[in-house]
Amino acid sequence: MKKRDGEELTTEEINYFIEGYTEEKIPDYQVSALMMAIYFKKMNKRETADLTKAMVNSGETVDLSEIKGIKVDKHSTGGVGDTTTLILGPIVAAAGVPVAKMSGRGLGHTGGTIDKLESFKGFSVDMTIKKFIENVNNIKIAIGGQTANLAPADKKLYSLRDVTATVDNISLIAGSIMSKKIASGADAIVLDVKTGSGAFMKEEASAFELAKEMVDIGNNVGRNTIAVITDMDQPLGYAVGNALEVKEAIDTLKGEGPKDLTELCLTLGSHMLVLGGRAKNPEEAREILEDIIKFGKGIEKLKELVSAQGGDPSFVDDTALFEGADIVKSVTAKGEGFIKGIKADDIGKAALVLGAGRETKESKIDLSVGIVLHKKIGDFVKSGEAIATIHANDGEKERLATEMVLNAYQITSEKVKPRTLIKGIVTKEGIKKFYKNNDRD
Amino acid sequence: MKKRDGEELTTEEINYFIEGYTEEKIPDYQVSALMMAIYFKKMNKRETADLTKAMVNSGETVDLSEIKGIKVDKHSTGGVGDTTTLILGPIVAAAGVPVAKMSGRGLGHTGGTIDKLESFKGFSVDMTIKKFIENVNNIKIAIGGQTANLAPADKKLYSLRDVTATVDNISLIAGSIMSKKIASGADAIVLDVKTGSGAFMKEEASAFELAKEMVDIGNNVGRNTIAVITDMDQPLGYAVGNALEVKEAIDTLKGEGPKDLTELCLTLGSHMLVLGGRAKNPEEAREILEDIIKFGKGIEKLKELVSAQGGDPSFVDDTALFEGADIVKSVTAKGEGFIKGIKADDIGKAALVLGAGRETKESKIDLSVGIVLHKKIGDFVKSGEAIATIHANDGEKERLATEMVLNAYQITSEKVKPRTLIKGIVTKEGIKKFYKNNDRD
Repeated sequence: MKKRDGEELTTEEINYFIEGYTEEKIPDYQVSALMMAIYFKKMNKRETADLTKAMVNSGETVDLSEIKGIKVDKHSTGGVGDTTTLILGPIVAAAGVPVAKMSGRGLGHTGGTIDKLESFKGFSVDMTIKKFIENVNNIKIAIGGQTANLAPADKKLYSLRDVTATVDNISLIAGSIMSKKIASGADAIVLDVKTGSGAFMKEEASAFELAKEMVDIGNNVGRNTIAVITDMDQPLGYAVGNALEVKEAIDTLKGEGPKDLTELCLTLGSHMLVLGGRAKNPEEAREILEDIIKFGKGIEKLKELVSAQGGDPSFVDDTALFEGADIVKSVTAKGEGFIKGIKADDIGKAALVLGAGRETKESKIDLSVGIVLHKKIGDFVKSGEAIATIHANDGEKERLATEMVLNAYQITSEKVKPRTLIKGIVTKEGIKKFYKNNDRD
Repeated sequence: MKKRDGEELTTEEINYFIEGYTEEKIPDYQVSALMMAIYFKKMNKRETADLTKAMVNSGETVDLSEIKGIKVDKHSTGGVGDTTTLILGPIVAAAGVPVAKMSGRGLGHTGGTIDKLESFKGFSVDMTIKKFIENVNNIKIAIGGQTANLAPADKKLYSLRDVTATVDNISLIAGSIMSKKIASGADAIVLDVKTGSGAFMKEEASAFELAKEMVDIGNNVGRNTIAVITDMDQPLGYAVGNALEVKEAIDTLKGEGPKDLTELCLTLGSHMLVLGGRAKNPEEAREILEDIIKFGKGIEKLKELVSAQGGDPSFVDDTALFEGADIVKSVTAKGEGFIKGIKADDIGKAALVLGAGRETKESKIDLSVGIVLHKKIGDFVKSGEAIATIHANDGEKERLATEMVLNAYQITSEKVKPRTLIKGIVTKEGIKKFYKNNDRD
């Protein structure tokens, strides 16, 4: 009733609600009414920070204090063909900043970071927390499975919001993401907030708003946090799928990756190096990372990581070793013109149809299948030219995916300017937008 | 989500929701979120009528078609010391309009109409529906217990709204009241919408709004409906309690009742006679009712009703037969002045403390206890003069109630004008407000 009437909730009231809900003393039906009231009446910065802290306190927190150096975590709000962790982890670790990553498997168009790493024969995330910390201290990187019970209040709350039309509130979204990140134990956080057709935040303005909210929460609880707002109006890079994305990550670590994916990794990585105390500013950091790629230190770090966790590092040098799909078939353009748009969501759904992702927790992932795009926004395509390649293990699914990919591409006769990838940066000092004349915004 | 975004729900959507909720296919937590969305985004007349109809259809409806004549029901939104049914029923029946009343026991400061009637030794509402209809056809009046499963969706919904801060929405309140009235089978409905400190609707404007909403629903579903907006800024009449209110009703039927209670019964009764086709207009109807009281036909009808349902009618002639309380003690004024206000809610709570009402469904009612006021707004009181009498069966409760009654009275040195009882009438044609110069509004 208090929130319904537009009043500010006290810290005690927010704690009472989160504790009561976690302990199942407050029923779902009261919480969903409160969520709807919050949807309409919003929460201010103080309430949002309190909610986030209460959700962190609802469960376990990871103690990474035995790891030397400043632990910088990265979080992406999710998109299609997003392989950044597999590239960022090795280059940031190679620069000397500890990467202690706990990942989930999650639901989605493709698997999570762990699923992708399991494309390396023998790779495993099963290790004790002691071994995990040892690995980070030795080689600066370890990828573990998420086993701790982090922010259970958030889990409960998110499931409820999902079925009561109360997801779309900036404070609740920001609190949900940040509670898990804060509980994960990182000292500093770099957020990749995606915007566009393939992102949760379709509108750029909302993406900036969400970024600001998360940056404020992070800094409010003593975690140095910045956010980069990036384009997800088309898939990132060319590959969408598990082994396919790993191969693309390897290419990128070798300096031969897609321009957009490389650029995103250098941008996010630069900020991680600055927050990690390894560089004074993003420009200096970028030079360090460019050198790491140039001199093969990133790809070397990936091999070290794979070896340290039981995987076969020879896959890195010979990507033909990755399990391939039975059917590899081109999708050819029906007409000619410039690529005006690629509905990222639809490409993701096509990958899901092929078996690359999970629809439910029980779904089994096919690591070999997926889609490789050949054309991106601004490219010219001739009639009959291949715009993408489908990797499938089932003819029926291949035909369905081909149809979906064709429908995802929008072709026009007028010249189209390529998209601007990095749209802006949000720090505790404020918002910086990068408007280029080739950007539609 | 649709209502959250301010869109209009279709008839099908409203039916789907009410059916699904009644059958427990739609969970509480989704309904409470919808209720909160309705709180913020409102429902229009069409949606409100559809919701009401859907709630009527969620359960049984009473078939009164075998009763000759136009059945007119009365509903009050509830107040303190409201004995109108015990007076209205007999005078309207005496005028020839059938009164087929199904009442509940309910929670409240005092019992319901049935509890009060049980003050007559032997009186019972246990009878078959056949006998009930027979009684109405023979003597024009019967009071039955509510046994049918009327509007179960409303019952579920109201319980949920009560604990999710979603009660206060005019459409939902109106739908809740009207669904039960419509399911009860009356052809026409007169509503007594109370406003003031002792009413659910504290503000006069909200009371008019609620009345308009209910009148529109009734007429929308083919039930001729009008509403009278009445003052509940002080208790109605002087008596608050069960047997005490019955005695006051008997006095009123004899033409010796409190002015306000008599006036309210004549007003509501007039409209019932008009809707029942017994009079052309309220003025003509009022004359009929005044004659009924004057010539003792009302008190005669009450005796007939009591006899027909097994009660002892001699109580009507000798009210000393009603069970009395052990302790009868005056509450005396501490100072002198004019009565400025009597917090009706607090008087009601004092009656509840004495044992006159039910706090839970299981509470046992004490029919003998209660409060009789001696002074009303505008009256002058001298220091030490009795302002009320407490009827109690427990000394501790008597002391507590005395304290509460004293606190409920507000006394001022300036002259106070008496309250206007009838504030306005709402019909399908519109709203008529009666502003008198002695009214604070």
